[in-house]
Parts: sequence; C-alpha cells; structure tokens
Amino acid sequence: MSERDQNQKPEPNSGATPNAKPKAKPRAAFRHFASFDTRWRDNDRYGHLNNAIYYELFDSAINQLLIDHGMLDFELGDHVFLVASSGCHYFSELAYPDKLEVGLAITRLGNSSVTYDLGLFKKGADHTAATGFFVHVHVTRDGYRPAPITARDRAAFAPFVVAN
Amino acid sequence: MSERDQNQKPEPNSGATPNAKPKAKPRAAFRHFASFDTRWRDNDRYGHLNNAIYYELFDSAINQLLIDHGMLDFELGDHVFLVASSGCHYFSELAYPDKLEVGLAITRLGNSSVTYDLGLFKKGADHTAATGFFVHVHVTRDGYRPAPITARDRAAFAPFVVAN
Amino acid sequence: MSERDQNQKPEPNSGATPNAKPKAKPRAAFRHFASFDTRWRDNDRYGHLNNAIYYELFDSAINQLLIDHGMLDFELGDHVFLVASSGCHYFSELAYPDKLEVGLAITRLGNSSVTYDLGLFKKGADHTAATGFFVHVHVTRDGYRPAPITARDRAAFAPFVVAN
Amino acid sequence: MSERDQNQKPEPNSGATPNAKPKAKPRAAFRHFASFDTRWRDNDRYGHLNNAIYYELFDSAINQLLIDHGMLDFELGDHVFLVASSGCHYFSELAYPDKLEVGLAITRLGNSSVTYDLGLFKKGADHTAATGFFVHVHVTRDGYRPAPITARDRAAFAPFVVAN
Repeated sequence: MSERDQNQKPEPNSGATPNAKPKAKPRAAFRHFASFDTRWRDNDRYGHLNNAIYYELFDSAINQLLIDHGMLDFELGDHVFLVASSGCHYFSELAYPDKLEVGLAITRLGNSSVTYDLGLFKKGADHTAATGFFVHVHVTRDGYRPAPITARDRAAFAPFVVAN
Repeated sequence: MSERDQNQKPEPNSGATPNAKPKAKPRAAFRHFASFDTRWRDNDRYGHLNNAIYYELFDSAINQLLIDHGMLDFELGDHVFLVASSGCHYFSELAYPDKLEVGLAITRLGNSSVTYDLGLFKKGADHTAATGFFVHVHVTRDGYRPAPITARDRAAFAPFVVAN
Repeated sequence: MSERDQNQKPEPNSGATPNAKPKAKPRAAFRHFASFDTRWRDNDRYGHLNNAIYYELFDSAINQLLIDHGMLDFELGDHVFLVASSGCHYFSELAYPDKLEVGLAITRLGNSSVTYDLGLFKKGADHTAATGFFVHVHVTRDGYRPAPITARDRAAFAPFVVAN
Repeated sequence: MSERDQNQKPEPNSGATPNAKPKAKPRAAFRHFASFDTRWRDNDRYGHLNNAIYYELFDSAINQLLIDHGMLDFELGDHVFLVASSGCHYFSELAYPDKLEVGLAITRLGNSSVTYDLGLFKKGADHTAATGFFVHVHVTRDGYRPAPITARDRAAFAPFVVAN
C-alpha cells in the first residue's frame, strides 16, 4: 500500500501544532456536539479514562459528523478521510460511568485536508476536560492518494468552520 | 479528585509542540526499543491499525520502561506518572498481523515532568511509520499533586535523554 | 495474587452452560435495559462490531447496575465482583454508528455468585442481535476470596431475578 | 446484510456448550501456540487483564493461524470465517506487563463450521489461566451465507484437530 508520507504534501500551517500553553475551552468554542457513553473497560489501572480513549471518542465524533452529512460511505464511497496527525491535552479526569460530550469545530479547511478542533466534556460541563485536534487527509479509497475535497463536501463542512 | 489543569504548572517549552513539518525518523533518534504484537481488533474498517492504537503502544512502551527501572509501582508506590499531553504524526500504514517496535527517547527531563519522543516502526524497519510524543507529569498517588522527580529516578532516566 | 481456580468452589448448575441451540430472545426476557453508543473503533476489518465488544458492553451494563444500586464501590468497598466465566451467541450483525441496548436478567443468585443473562439489541429492536451470560463471583477486595453475598445486596438483586 | 441467525443452520453438538465444571488445562491439550504481549490499557480498574481482552487474544491467535495457512485473505478472498459463539472460563489473574501464550486445538471440524478450544497461558506456565472456545462459521464474503469448508482448507486444519 502506498506510503502516506510520500503522497501527503502537507499544507502550511496545517494545524499540527497545538497551542503550547493549552487551556480548557468553553462550549462556545465548538460548533457541534455529540454524546458518548463510557465503558467499564475505559478505566485503566488508575481508575480513570485511559488516555487513548479520548482519541477513540474524537474519532467517533468526527466520523459520525461525516456520515450524517453524507461525506463518508465506507462501503461504496470512492474517497475516505485518513488521520494524518492528532494530539490531546488532558486537563481533568474523566471516568466510567461518566456521560460525555465531544465538541467539534473546523479550524482549517484545506484543499485536501481538514483540521478539527475537539473538546471532551463531562456531560453538561462548561469547560473541556481535554482538548485535542485531528488532521484528516481526503484520499482516494483505492491507493490512498490525496484528492481535493469536493465543492459539495466543502459546503457541508462550512457551518462547522471557525476563525482560528 | 483534583483537577490536573489547576495543579500542573506547565513548564516553558514543555514538548507539547510537535514539529509542524514532521518527517519519519531513523532508529538512531531513539535510545530504547520495545517490541509489540498486533491484534485482529487493532485493524479498523480500513484494514489498518486504528489511530488510537498507536497511543496504546506508546503508553505501554513508556510504562514498561518505568516498571523495568523501578520507577512505577502501581500497587504500592506513592507517586505515579499521568499523561498531560500526547500527539502523533502518521506516515505509513501498519496492520495486524505486523510485528512492531516502539522507539523511545527523552527530549526533556523537567522538575516534575518528562517529555518522551516516540516512534512506531514495523519490526526491523529503518524509519518510523509514525512519530509521537507523550508528556508525563509526576504526581502524588494520593491527590495527584505534581511532585519533583527524585534524584534516583533522574539517574534512571539519564541514559534515555537526547539533546532536543 | 491468589488463584481464582483454587478459591472459587463453583456451585452446581452455575449458569456456565449456555443453551446449545440458542435463539434470539425477546425484550420480555430481560428485567433491565441500558443504552450504549458505538465507536468507530468498534468496527473491525469486516465493518461490523468486533466480537469482543459485546463483552465490553455486557460488562459495562452489569457494573452500571451494581453502581446504581450501591453494590460496587471500587474506591472504598471491601468486596468486588469478578468474572468467573462468560459466553455469547452472535445472531445478527451490529455496526458503528448503531445505537444499542443491553438487556439484563439474573438467572441464578447463588451464595457467592450471580449469573446474568444478557442480550444485545439494536436500539428499539424486538429481539436480541446476540445473547450472552456472565457469572460473577463475589470476593473480598483483599485477596479475592469468595464471600457470601450480603442480605442487603440480595435484596437489591431480587427485582432482576427471573425463573430460569 | 443478511442475518446470521437465519442462514446459519447450526450443526448438532456444535461445541457451544462449554464444560460446566471447567478446570485449567495442560499444554498437552493444545496443538498450536502463539505468543502475545500485553498493553497498559489491558489492565482495568482491578489491575488485571479485563475479561474482554481474553477474547481479543483468542481471536487474534485463530486469525493468525488462518492467515499463516492461507485460509484467510481479507482483501481478496471470497470466503471469511465469522464468530457464531464464544465463551471463556477464568481461573487465575493475568496482568500487563505479563507475556502470554494462546494454545489452540480444533475440537470439531464441521461442514461449514470450526470449533476451537483455546487456552491462555502466562508465558511458559504449565496450565491455562483461562480456557475458552470459539465457533467459526465459514461464509461467503458477499452476503455472509454459510458455505462448505473446502477440501484444501480441511487438509490445512487437520493437524490441529484433537479428539473431543
């Protein structure tokens, strides 16, 4: 399979540089919210959500948005979005059986990439317990070659874009 | 439990800013290697390792190092290391049943924090398939208050430190 | 740590023998329902929920019931429930982003063990997509020695018991 | 997609009835062994391997065997093996960073199904820490309809079959 590092042509200012002095963010920083349950297995030896779970939830919130807006058909679609980079700052603990929310906004809509700003909230909380980002690259299903995001998809993304 | 954002006092230049133009790294960039298996469940819908798995492996390699050097006793120890931030750049695909290696180096040894540079290799490969970082904060087991890393632990970390 | 096989003294007819000709069960077979989300990572290479996820959800539904009824305090309690055996029959596919429900009933309340009958439903479905069972053994937090279930806990379990 | 409960035609004595009085098994009970690492995230709140991880490892050992013997090509193959039922008896604790082994034998090779007997060992141990079973149904990749196991595959399975 092709190497993403050769194909990817990262764009300037691609969102892969999280703020070096992170702070919890308010709900107003996000344009979309998705609810999530927690599972017994999410809690690790320390009795709190393992750090990798945050990424599972961010990933699920993004893909849910794509599915809901007709931008991801992993059975029949000829393009998919792959994760080029991700990151997370952890501020306060979460634990099963907490109910959670993921907040989402798009901070950069590039030619063939999308940068998502993400926040994980304890359900109903004012500020994030963690903030993170994902950079998605839009690629052909076959061969994983970067491909321009279509006008249709750009229009679907528009309501979630915030000034960065 | 205490909020990590209030207690943490992040230190300047804490490693939470991954290089904005990431490149695959050679084995020489790392000071320690740990082998890992993959599992059927690691492959997601796209037939490759899900992006969250990379963090599970980085986390396991770090904790293994801590355990091997007597720096983590999660039954009886009075200090633990919690993840304050993490990040990953994905370059090329990995998939079950690949055998993998995690490379590890310490790029900053702060008063109460450790910044790890991490690389995920297909076993025997020259360059990383992904690179990442973890920032650990050294905290009291009880109350999760940041605490200085002991002289004994600083000595144990020393062989893994690289100039950044 | 002590070996559960030496301590456990399994009781006759312990529920560890699932029906050899399993059939999907109706909602009426259960006494309690818990809702669950799915996650992108739950789907494996075949695009459906990996078989191990069913156990994560069953486990989470049981522990949620225990927590809600004051029978599990994993910070301070002096007893916990450990899984002695489990099993699952898979009837029809489930996949992210499906919303799910776990149905639960107790088919045997022994001296120091509880046998749960479990069903996983697509949200709102009439019949289970999978049925399973868990046998929990009530043990001391320290040393994991089987201990009689208290009268208080037996009373809390009573509403969920069905004739088997 | 088709419902597995309608298509499956389970065969008599299909292996879905684990022994009601389980005991740890010796290495001699198995015909094949696969090694596995553990991960920090495998340990749950109780500091031991979460019960669902056992199934992840069993599943990985079986699929590895199928891949190694050319019986599973999930890119191009026109048949796959789906899990129809599974079960596990837990005898003694395992925990990260233990190294583990899965033992495997085939206890029934049906027309379109395979029943695996499985054991999880701490690496080098004489007896299983847990024993389990998986029933695989051989189905068409397209539509998931049960299909006879080919003569070629039956020959490949033969060395792993034990008298039950």
